[in-house]
Amino acid sequence: MKRSIATVSISGTLVEKLTAIQAAGFDGIEIFENDLLYFDGSPADVRRIASDLGLEIVLFQPFRDFEGVSAERLARNLDRVKRKFDLMHELGTDRILVCSNVSPETIGDDALIVDQLGALARAAQEAGVIAGYEALAWGRHVNSYRHAWRLVDAVDHPNLGLVLDSFHTLSIDDPVGEIAAIPGERIAFVQIADAPKLAMDVLEWSRHYRCFPGQGDFDLAAFTARVIETGYDGPLSLEIFNDGFRAAPTAITAVDGYRSLLFLEEETRAVLEREGKPVEETGHLYESPPAPVHVGFQFLEFAVDDTARNQLIDWLTRLRFRRTGQHRSKDVALYQHGAASIVLNAEADSFASAFFNQHGLSLCASAFRVDDAKLAFQRAAGFRYAPFSGRVGPNERVLPAVQGPDGSLNYFVDEAPDEPTLFEADFVLTDVNGPGDAGALTGIDHVCLSLPADSLNAWVLFFKTAFGFQAEADWLVPDPYGLVRSRAVRSRDGSVRIALNASMDRHTAVSESLSMYRGSGLNHVAFGTADIFSTLPGFIANGLPLLRIPRNYYDDLAARYGLADDLLEALRTHNILYDRDERGGEFFHAYTEQFDHRFFLEIVERRGGYDGYGAANAAVRLAAQAQQKKKPARPSGPA
Amino acid sequence: MKRSIATVSISGTLVEKLTAIQAAGFDGIEIFENDLLYFDGSPADVRRIASDLGLEIVLFQPFRDFEGVSAERLARNLDRVKRKFDLMHELGTDRILVCSNVSPETIGDDALIVDQLGALARAAQEAGVIAGYEALAWGRHVNSYRHAWRLVDAVDHPNLGLVLDSFHTLSIDDPVGEIAAIPGERIAFVQIADAPKLAMDVLEWSRHYRCFPGQGDFDLAAFTARVIETGYDGPLSLEIFNDGFRAAPTAITAVDGYRSLLFLEEETRAVLEREGKPVEETGHLYESPPAPVHVGFQFLEFAVDDTARNQLIDWLTRLRFRRTGQHRSKDVALYQHGAASIVLNAEADSFASAFFNQHGLSLCASAFRVDDAKLAFQRAAGFRYAPFSGRVGPNERVLPAVQGPDGSLNYFVDEAPDEPTLFEADFVLTDVNGPGDAGALTGIDHVCLSLPADSLNAWVLFFKTAFGFQAEADWLVPDPYGLVRSRAVRSRDGSVRIALNASMDRHTAVSESLSMYRGSGLNHVAFGTADIFSTLPGFIANGLPLLRIPRNYYDDLAARYGLADDLLEALRTHNILYDRDERGGEFFHAYTEQFDHRFFLEIVERRGGYDGYGAANAAVRLAAQAQQKKKPARPSGPA
Repeated sequence: MKRSIATVSISGTLVEKLTAIQAAGFDGIEIFENDLLYFDGSPADVRRIASDLGLEIVLFQPFRDFEGVSAERLARNLDRVKRKFDLMHELGTDRILVCSNVSPETIGDDALIVDQLGALARAAQEAGVIAGYEALAWGRHVNSYRHAWRLVDAVDHPNLGLVLDSFHTLSIDDPVGEIAAIPGERIAFVQIADAPKLAMDVLEWSRHYRCFPGQGDFDLAAFTARVIETGYDGPLSLEIFNDGFRAAPTAITAVDGYRSLLFLEEETRAVLEREGKPVEETGHLYESPPAPVHVGFQFLEFAVDDTARNQLIDWLTRLRFRRTGQHRSKDVALYQHGAASIVLNAEADSFASAFFNQHGLSLCASAFRVDDAKLAFQRAAGFRYAPFSGRVGPNERVLPAVQGPDGSLNYFVDEAPDEPTLFEADFVLTDVNGPGDAGALTGIDHVCLSLPADSLNAWVLFFKTAFGFQAEADWLVPDPYGLVRSRAVRSRDGSVRIALNASMDRHTAVSESLSMYRGSGLNHVAFGTADIFSTLPGFIANGLPLLRIPRNYYDDLAARYGLADDLLEALRTHNILYDRDERGGEFFHAYTEQFDHRFFLEIVERRGGYDGYGAANAAVRLAAQAQQKKKPARPSGPA
Repeated sequence: MKRSIATVSISGTLVEKLTAIQAAGFDGIEIFENDLLYFDGSPADVRRIASDLGLEIVLFQPFRDFEGVSAERLARNLDRVKRKFDLMHELGTDRILVCSNVSPETIGDDALIVDQLGALARAAQEAGVIAGYEALAWGRHVNSYRHAWRLVDAVDHPNLGLVLDSFHTLSIDDPVGEIAAIPGERIAFVQIADAPKLAMDVLEWSRHYRCFPGQGDFDLAAFTARVIETGYDGPLSLEIFNDGFRAAPTAITAVDGYRSLLFLEEETRAVLEREGKPVEETGHLYESPPAPVHVGFQFLEFAVDDTARNQLIDWLTRLRFRRTGQHRSKDVALYQHGAASIVLNAEADSFASAFFNQHGLSLCASAFRVDDAKLAFQRAAGFRYAPFSGRVGPNERVLPAVQGPDGSLNYFVDEAPDEPTLFEADFVLTDVNGPGDAGALTGIDHVCLSLPADSLNAWVLFFKTAFGFQAEADWLVPDPYGLVRSRAVRSRDGSVRIALNASMDRHTAVSESLSMYRGSGLNHVAFGTADIFSTLPGFIANGLPLLRIPRNYYDDLAARYGLADDLLEALRTHNILYDRDERGGEFFHAYTEQFDHRFFLEIVERRGGYDGYGAANAAVRLAAQAQQKKKPARPSGPA
């Protein structure tokens, strides 16, 4: 499959864009007219630069409001389009996108439009180019691909084809089934964009909120599968108008775009295979090793120095973690409680120390337990996440890893029945009783990352492509000083959950933690427990300082849920928050105060299949944290 | 008029909010339930804090989904609302807002709803409070104030009143005329919000895009005039859900809210007076000195040190400005060309030097010529913009001034026929021929300010309230590294125009100039000319370096407008940009390169009543500037 992207999809000057697009792996580009307009050089210069980079210019766009016009206007439009044909020759491209007329003066007469598109086709033939006609979702008379195709079909000229655009089709819920019946050679071009489902004017939605496949809500694989069935063999080309992408770093956005096309091809292949379509239809679609079915947290690894290590150990001890191992060759210690494993890495001149120098105390690596580590790694690397290998001591395990969007490592770990476990291989296990205090904490329930606003989409794509995770709907949480956008991803079996929080503003808790730690990453870890009411008092007795929840919150809980007085009293006493889902599932959770101005921990208990994260309580927590900061620190030690 | 604001309208913790609201001048507050929930103290604590600040708690809100429910649900809702009545007693407020049911399960039966609202009214009576019923624009069964009023009227109980909200009425184009017929004593509360007209889901629009009166597109004065006619004597209360306000500085937003209410009262008074309504209806509305009818630029004043002064003089000289005066008592020089006057202020230990220390070379003051300076000042000061007075030498003019949102000064100047002019009074005029080179530049056409994204609304309000300017619609301009939101304001006679540009992102030219100059303000000055083609060559010969416009831009102009070849060639030769409006008005404009990494100048010629700013060309300019930065500087001196 040829892979292409429109220059309008990413930020930068035209040269910056082309360089990034080539580096990302694309075969071709659509030149968006404004990018050419703004470029201080000739179209022939652009042709040369693209050609030097090995990029084909597969389309020039857009040409607007050509058809359904008066005879006089048609003459002017033909004159106008012939100038663009000349320009296309200089650019070295043979294809132009002509979008359906949006002018209020359009004459909505199909016979007239067929005539005029015929004139366009003949002019294109003279110039030796192909005009592609696209129905804009907000076109005045023509707004669906089916209508556009009837017109193109009626013109029946080899120099006029149909342009399909997933946004224009899926945004108006236009059924995709009829695409498959269009002859592939009559499809001049195919543009791909995803988008979150938004209740707004379709033009505004299109111009500001498109995103890469996999980041939005459209069923793009169903659309693309029908395109493939037509025998179309031109490029799949990303055309993304997105306010965030316009401001995001050029190179990162470009490679995310490339990944998203690979992912779309994989999903399209799956659709076609499920439908039992012949192999030749799927043969040129990207094929990736399958995503791991089971994924679990193996450990979280923190980059520390001596001070940070002592600080973390202090907190882990209050949660009754025990030091269970010391790395065989590195200054790395293992702490465990139940199934939760935390690794503290203070090794000098290592990836961890570099990470510490850049970010301070931070999550430098996450290790995921998978069925087959090698396959999982190959999948992630295939999606162009950078492979990483560190120093390995004798007899230590080589863990395949890729770097995530913030540069942190993501290890893949599997265990074979007859071989030593990872911890046995790499650590001298010092606590022969194994993880202590079983029954208090069961493991890592979820982790939560703080992200810059413009990187949320990149992280969603990372977990969806590299790990095959599913993304949940996003929601907005009010912080006292702005809004936080939150979106959770989870492994298909639900055993790994990661909440991604991005500040929309400069002053929220999320932005503060980011600016304090120069851009990386972990905000809090939530540990699961089977019985929060029996677990918490022990931690509190150990001196774990819990975030104080305002009393008014509990009065409101009483009014909302009619909870029994003794339950309410128990919640209030332990500063436990409460949520209930529509099916009666319940969520009990308590937060620690923040330490190091940034991290905190959460203890959670899920009952009755509750599947969320207590989203309803996030604003209470943020407000309580803001108030905590304005008060003198409470003494630690047993309360 | 009592003035109130809902705590949800501004950022911060509850205590921060109350403090800022009191300082801004408000009489009362609506306590938004979540603010109470998040507050770590009792409702009685809130009552005490508000009371200490002299703020009345005029409303508690919201209570949702009360009416149109099953008998069993009604019992639960009554129980729930009685708990809130108890809480209101602790808070010390007698009023609660009950909004129309949005649940899909609502029973849309008016008789049933009247019954149930009756039960609510009786419960309120028992508790000694008043329930106010409000139609949400997205209410399931009740979504217009007229429907809500029919129900409240039918209940006919003193403890149930109607709540009016301008957003819910104007967002659905509900006619406001029938408000006037509602007896004022049956109106329990009035909420005020403006909003830009947006084509989107009304719930999303309401939750994220409301703004203060005067900042949006609603005809709030028409709404409020009808409210005043009812005899309603409760507060006008701002209830603004706005993502930007949630992140903006608390105190500044609060005082802007207060200003916006004063402004609304002034506009409402004007509506009532135009309609010939009796004096008692307008008597308690804010009355301000009228806005000046004629406003012109008297001068722009730059804070400079020696280096910056020489740099500016160099540029002004290339534009054939002459040094025409030296201030009588200060290190301040006057440069003039045509009607354009530029003042360079290097006075030590002055406002200007303080401004220079904070912002570097920057616009520290703008002087506006008005009919009556004292009245204009009183108006601006009445809107709570801080008055300023500097040192004045003997026989020098005292210029009344207020500080704008960035702390810069705005002077008001008038001239009396028999008295020396401002320049004669304050300056030793050194060029007896007066402003030189008449005919080249005619004066200041417009100025353009770069603003942080969250301050655009504050600036719009400043010019609308203090100056009586009109604001035009806003538009988005793509910069190579993000989006810029632009909105122009102008005096009613059109002689002062100011374009306000706010970066939506961190990397645009606007953000860069802001970060370089630590938050203030001027981005460029546009000078008018009567004939750009004869004016520019002289400046170029003087060494004025013009921003090079990409050649492709001119090819596109040719295709778009069918310009004559010789005109096109003249545009291309001089790097002049071109725009044409729908009525054939034409705009010719050229930019200088940037100097000091931030400022630039523009030369503009308007023909045929062209009234805009060449918005269509802004993206070309931003892209050309981005490309300029990546090239070595061109030599200056005659070209």
